[in-house]
Amino acid sequence: MKVIRTIKEMQQIRRDERLNTIGFVPTMGYLHEGHTSLMKKATAENDLVVASIFVNPLQFGPSEDFETYPRDEQRDQQIAKENGVDILFLPDVQEMYPDELKVNLSIKERANVLCGATRDGHFDGVITVLTKLFNIVQPEVAYFGLKDAQQVAVVAALINDVNFPIVLSAEPTIREADGLAKSSRNVYLSTDERAEAKHLYKALLHGLNIFINEQQDNDTLIQSVRKYLSKYTSGVIDYVDFLSYPELKPVTNKSERMILAIAVKYKQARLIDNVIFNRSGDIIETIKF
Amino acid sequence: MKVIRTIKEMQQIRRDERLNTIGFVPTMGYLHEGHTSLMKKATAENDLVVASIFVNPLQFGPSEDFETYPRDEQRDQQIAKENGVDILFLPDVQEMYPDELKVNLSIKERANVLCGATRDGHFDGVITVLTKLFNIVQPEVAYFGLKDAQQVAVVAALINDVNFPIVLSAEPTIREADGLAKSSRNVYLSTDERAEAKHLYKALLHGLNIFINEQQDNDTLIQSVRKYLSKYTSGVIDYVDFLSYPELKPVTNKSERMILAIAVKYKQARLIDNVIFNRSGDIIETIKF
Repeated sequence: MKVIRTIKEMQQIRRDERLNTIGFVPTMGYLHEGHTSLMKKATAENDLVVASIFVNPLQFGPSEDFETYPRDEQRDQQIAKENGVDILFLPDVQEMYPDELKVNLSIKERANVLCGATRDGHFDGVITVLTKLFNIVQPEVAYFGLKDAQQVAVVAALINDVNFPIVLSAEPTIREADGLAKSSRNVYLSTDERAEAKHLYKALLHGLNIFINEQQDNDTLIQSVRKYLSKYTSGVIDYVDFLSYPELKPVTNKSERMILAIAVKYKQARLIDNVIFNRSGDIIETIKF
Repeated sequence: MKVIRTIKEMQQIRRDERLNTIGFVPTMGYLHEGHTSLMKKATAENDLVVASIFVNPLQFGPSEDFETYPRDEQRDQQIAKENGVDILFLPDVQEMYPDELKVNLSIKERANVLCGATRDGHFDGVITVLTKLFNIVQPEVAYFGLKDAQQVAVVAALINDVNFPIVLSAEPTIREADGLAKSSRNVYLSTDERAEAKHLYKALLHGLNIFINEQQDNDTLIQSVRKYLSKYTSGVIDYVDFLSYPELKPVTNKSERMILAIAVKYKQARLIDNVIFNRSGDIIETIKF
């Protein structure tokens, strides 16, 4: 009989048994280059790639866009196929939530700021569906885009807290030529809004520049980014915040990695973007948790 | 590219990759025949048997017996070895809970009755540690004793809700010659208490007999079991309840499976016991979820 005292050694036993490694790309569909870049990375790093498409009702609030979230299953299947996906997991809502859940997952830290401050229960819905998907797909590596940086921070906490045998690979935000972060929701921008929306990323770079050159305090930096956004876009600022990453606590001079994050509401779409950087102001685009 | 729409089919892919099946027996140690019977069953049904010993602080209340819960690691290692365990997982508290948890697991149904009514947060602690252990050991089958029938009901809900690729195998309560259910806490009974304690099981059989022969309503049945317990033991009755199983809702004439469950407090030990039966009064000792 073998006696094992560490989690790592215990998990390695099952890891060694796998014939293939699976790289997993969970999505809500309406695939764009943000997703396909994850699929390509997963293809390069694993024996098999599984992608899922599931618009998860649990992570939408009652006044949010669950019903109108864009969907195009035929097109998505084609895109997944062309980008190296071996298995596309496409459950319906009944398959994922046949009964009311008896078990409740919630996240206390990292969730009450940024998007979590206004999207009540959103991240609880995210960790619930991901716990299910992780148990269903059982991947070795899960790929997420850093555009949803708060989601990455929350999923990193989930994986760590409950010991999922999964590496979280957080990948670069993919942008349009003018800097706008790719998003399934960009289709809901009017022509004028789309033209303005390039200023979200420019506002972030403006903030980063202040951080590097002007040694301003956090509030002044945030106010300067707000001013920039107000000047160049007609959207309503939901938040501008500057926090440590992935802890999402106020930045201090001990913070090694920081996120400057924004959310702006247009008529039919709420856009988010962020930039993550170290104390020297170098942008960090990839993190393995 | 393969498109999969069901959870079962997706999980089968990973199942087919495993070289061995693992049967898992999670315990809090101080092993007795209740545990060794699970180890033997796991040995008979799987390629490898993993047992864990971890006294989980999260499932003890502040006034409960975490510190004094009986422990004997050397003896337990010997017993595990003799009963077919291939791998004994023995983490310490620091290994399992290195930081404060950011994610919170709780169970709403099946937890606010029986032991859950007085042991606040107990089953939240149980599902949290089991979520971690399931991710660490990654078994095909997990074995639990039906002595802790509410725990079995709660774990069945956990496995179902978050799609753990695990069969829950609920096994018979193992009893002393006089009927007392084996428990690590029995060592804390005084000689007089030990002599009386056989009446817990007799009280359950008395209740079952009433169910079969007298067609009494639920309350009368419960009162009759309470009366029996008061007459034959000096312990303080914590609860006597009669519920559907595993739902743990009040019994109706549509309930197919029922549990009659009791908890009695002695000076140094709180004992629980139960009997599960169908409408014909046949005792059910094994359930696969």
